[in-house]
Amino acid sequence: MARFEEVVSAVRARIRPDADERERLRAAVGELTERAEEAIADLSVDADVIQVGSTARGTWTSGDRDIDLFVRFPPEMDREELESLGLELGHAVLPDGHEEYAEHPYVKGQFDGFDVDFVPCYRVESATDIQSAVDRTPFHTTYLEARLDDDLADEVLLFKQFLKGICAYGSDLRTKGFSGYLAELLVLEYGGFREVLEATAEWHPPVRFDPEDHGTATFDDPLVVIDPTDPERNVAAVLSAENVARVQHYARDLLETPRESVFFPEPPDPLAPEEVHDFIAERGTTPVAVRFDAPDVVDDQLYPQLQKSLAGVGDALSRRGFDVLRADLFADESAVLFFELAVAERPAIERHDGPPVHVRAHATGFYEKYADSDAYGPFIDGDRYAVEREREFTSAVDFLRSDAILDAALGVHVESTLKTGYDVLSGDETGLLAEEFGTELARYFDPKP
Amino acid sequence: MARFEEVVSAVRARIRPDADERERLRAAVGELTERAEEAIADLSVDADVIQVGSTARGTWTSGDRDIDLFVRFPPEMDREELESLGLELGHAVLPDGHEEYAEHPYVKGQFDGFDVDFVPCYRVESATDIQSAVDRTPFHTTYLEARLDDDLADEVLLFKQFLKGICAYGSDLRTKGFSGYLAELLVLEYGGFREVLEATAEWHPPVRFDPEDHGTATFDDPLVVIDPTDPERNVAAVLSAENVARVQHYARDLLETPRESVFFPEPPDPLAPEEVHDFIAERGTTPVAVRFDAPDVVDDQLYPQLQKSLAGVGDALSRRGFDVLRADLFADESAVLFFELAVAERPAIERHDGPPVHVRAHATGFYEKYADSDAYGPFIDGDRYAVEREREFTSAVDFLRSDAILDAALGVHVESTLKTGYDVLSGDETGLLAEEFGTELARYFDPKP
Repeated sequence: MARFEEVVSAVRARIRPDADERERLRAAVGELTERAEEAIADLSVDADVIQVGSTARGTWTSGDRDIDLFVRFPPEMDREELESLGLELGHAVLPDGHEEYAEHPYVKGQFDGFDVDFVPCYRVESATDIQSAVDRTPFHTTYLEARLDDDLADEVLLFKQFLKGICAYGSDLRTKGFSGYLAELLVLEYGGFREVLEATAEWHPPVRFDPEDHGTATFDDPLVVIDPTDPERNVAAVLSAENVARVQHYARDLLETPRESVFFPEPPDPLAPEEVHDFIAERGTTPVAVRFDAPDVVDDQLYPQLQKSLAGVGDALSRRGFDVLRADLFADESAVLFFELAVAERPAIERHDGPPVHVRAHATGFYEKYADSDAYGPFIDGDRYAVEREREFTSAVDFLRSDAILDAALGVHVESTLKTGYDVLSGDETGLLAEEFGTELARYFDPKP
Repeated sequence: MARFEEVVSAVRARIRPDADERERLRAAVGELTERAEEAIADLSVDADVIQVGSTARGTWTSGDRDIDLFVRFPPEMDREELESLGLELGHAVLPDGHEEYAEHPYVKGQFDGFDVDFVPCYRVESATDIQSAVDRTPFHTTYLEARLDDDLADEVLLFKQFLKGICAYGSDLRTKGFSGYLAELLVLEYGGFREVLEATAEWHPPVRFDPEDHGTATFDDPLVVIDPTDPERNVAAVLSAENVARVQHYARDLLETPRESVFFPEPPDPLAPEEVHDFIAERGTTPVAVRFDAPDVVDDQLYPQLQKSLAGVGDALSRRGFDVLRADLFADESAVLFFELAVAERPAIERHDGPPVHVRAHATGFYEKYADSDAYGPFIDGDRYAVEREREFTSAVDFLRSDAILDAALGVHVESTLKTGYDVLSGDETGLLAEEFGTELARYFDPKP
């Protein structure tokens, strides 16, 4: 007990922004808001500016540098006008900023050491009237500001840092973890960080909450938290079953053995190529890797495409008899689909079952097709014809190097990139990946929850 | 059409016993019956002698040398007395005979070039009153004698020879084919050999007949022919789905391309060891063989035990990741379980899935068991823990050579034989099997329906 409180106090001291940091943030937000309001007045448009996100709610951890400012326009404004006015205001507020694109185009820039997003949205009556996802954000801030006092905000900080430490923080499509909003709602629900841990340790998914008791839809997700501002939305829709399990594991672990390292884990030492060779020799497997230039798209497009491609190529390998022990993907400048194979070679022939002999037309067609071929058979097994025919690919590497890889289910930009060229590495050659992905390979070969 | 009749005439000429052969058989049966009746009189027992089987019904093919004589005792006689009287009469009729054991002990011997079985049974009122399976046989003979004229008997000969040619004749547990009685009932049902072929070519199993329309039981067999003398019995109970398919295949084949070779196939040339090596190289597989002394039991015990052992060891190989492309068994002096493997080696590790993390007691037990072991992990995959742990056998040959083979489902005499010792051959070593099983290997590597 005491030990847990000690650890939590130490963590809190590391992550809680101090008065100076809070003051600098407040000053920056004040200055940016003033600039925005002046620009709105200059343009004579009906708009207002609000601060949203964790820095608005006092739930940001020390060192976070994200300021989110939303400019709200009347809901009857057409979308083109909203977008062009939003950008015009954004450039006025952040003269050195550049444009990015999420639901709308918006301006991103630096101010006094902070990363600032200046995002246009519609000022709708309620979160159910939204025209795009960003319109919902101000409602979240309003909801939480009214409920999170300073003590609860500190508890949120702890839970968010815990989620960061176990790699389950973030609702981006790479992480598929807990959004800040979801973390805040859970702390509100259970009343504190320790209470969240004790509860999640005992969860039996699917777990469902509906803080405002207004949910109207059903969801097939391991965790369902009905958005207090929108009865049709599951705040945890993106959260993977794996991250639910990860939180459960580490909640038990931290309560059992409290320690700061869960919140601030050291990354593993990157592997050298020779260390990869040692792991391969010890495991007796055949790793193969498909390496290509990472497609130039945002992470929320890139990772789903890589995940789809990893599954697609993995299925294609398995269907051809090349058994995958485990697979992973790495992305930086290159992207890598990495498969550790238990079976990398197959015989020259494969069995192919035909129809039951009593289905006369099909059976005769099958028999005649193969009777004069190079296949062994046809013979009868049970009530069916079967043959042993030449296998298309006797080696996983041959398959991966062939155009047949393009028939696998691939992400669209992965497919177009593969068409322009890619490398296939096999066995000890995969040690070369350590130059770019040594840390990822260290995690791969020493996997943890 | 004409061609089919030509072929059938030529076959009939080869298999129909001529007048001389029929006369020699009749004389032998007469002499044996006389001897039996004298012996019965000498012992003053209430018994009679009847001839049964194909030689009794005129449905034997030329060269068959089996005479079946049954001696029938009153149903109230106790079994011990029946058995001792049966043997005493048998030795009187066949002074050079020896005892064998089926349902009862009986005497088997030679007489004038014929193989004679002298079998005791009960003279029951109807086939439903039988005390053992042999009591039923006389009813079959009576039923068929009343219905098979000489023309139909000739048609039976053709169908039986066809079944012999395609290796589907015999209700023994090695062949699992058509008994003579079943062949005769089908010819009766359809009216001739050609009609049987035309009908079977179109069968959609399950196929059911009940010639006397008195069946009382249901059966889960591909072919059901209710015994005209016993409403509770399927005459085709032993017939395998594979032999049904084989008959369908060759019925179509013979009608399409009539030829004598279907009735009288040449056995393939036995393979030499080097030819086995060539097949292995061409197929790229790894054959492995477990060879041991064939247990000294009758074929109807031996083959089911070998089949069970083949399936049991095959399952054990597959469960350990050694994929079986095809398997077969050979038996003579030795018995061989032969497996052609597509995968004969596996990595040093195997994946082992644990419980879902949310099942706390099981999950924690699994985690703690492996956390400090040599296994890789535990890690989380989906909602479960998983580890990669050392694999017990990385080579199929190592498994087959170990005591773990005895945990496979084995026939009882196979298990006791393996405990006394066996050989494991792998790859080209399996060529050595050609010395004893060259013909079987020729069939294996050139499989036909």
